[in-house]
Amino acid sequence: MPGTPSPLPAVPRPCCGHPAGSPPAAGTGAYLDWVSHEVRSPLTVLAGYLEALLDGVGGELGAEQRELLLLARGGAERLTGFAEHLLHGPRT
Amino acid sequence: MPGTPSPLPAVPRPCCGHPAGSPPAAGTGAYLDWVSHEVRSPLTVLAGYLEALLDGVGGELGAEQRELLLLARGGAERLTGFAEHLLHGPRT
Repeated sequence: MPGTPSPLPAVPRPCCGHPAGSPPAAGTGAYLDWVSHEVRSPLTVLAGYLEALLDGVGGELGAEQRELLLLARGGAERLTGFAEHLLHGPRT
Repeated sequence: MPGTPSPLPAVPRPCCGHPAGSPPAAGTGAYLDWVSHEVRSPLTVLAGYLEALLDGVGGELGAEQRELLLLARGGAERLTGFAEHLLHGPRT
């Protein structure tokens, strides 16, 4: 239906949305914060697409399709956990 | 079918497969290499699941399901590009 708004946001493009136009200096805590944000932000949206599919948006899933999506979602969740770890890991 | 091997590998767990048991010192080039690897490696496998679904493994997809999967795959590809960028970006 033309004019119908898309129910889900586009996945943000890493590297292109940094307000200052360039990342903080490498090796600094701010740089790790930036990396973590750049990874987590599109992952959150990506996981949203997988969640929508698992919720049946677009139609019913077969058992194998569901299994593959659950594996993909698990990978996205672990990557999100890794990006969180960057925020809290050692920085010396 | 019992005993049939799974056609796709599990998504590697970031943070758990580093051979030395702990990451290189933060702020070093080796640390950025490690971060990049830890992001790219599970993303490659995650994208493999999405690719399999798009190839029809598990059954045919509806138009909306395909669209959501293509958006999710695009996000995974952009994240892979970001991780590549970490390998080649400034390190000063």
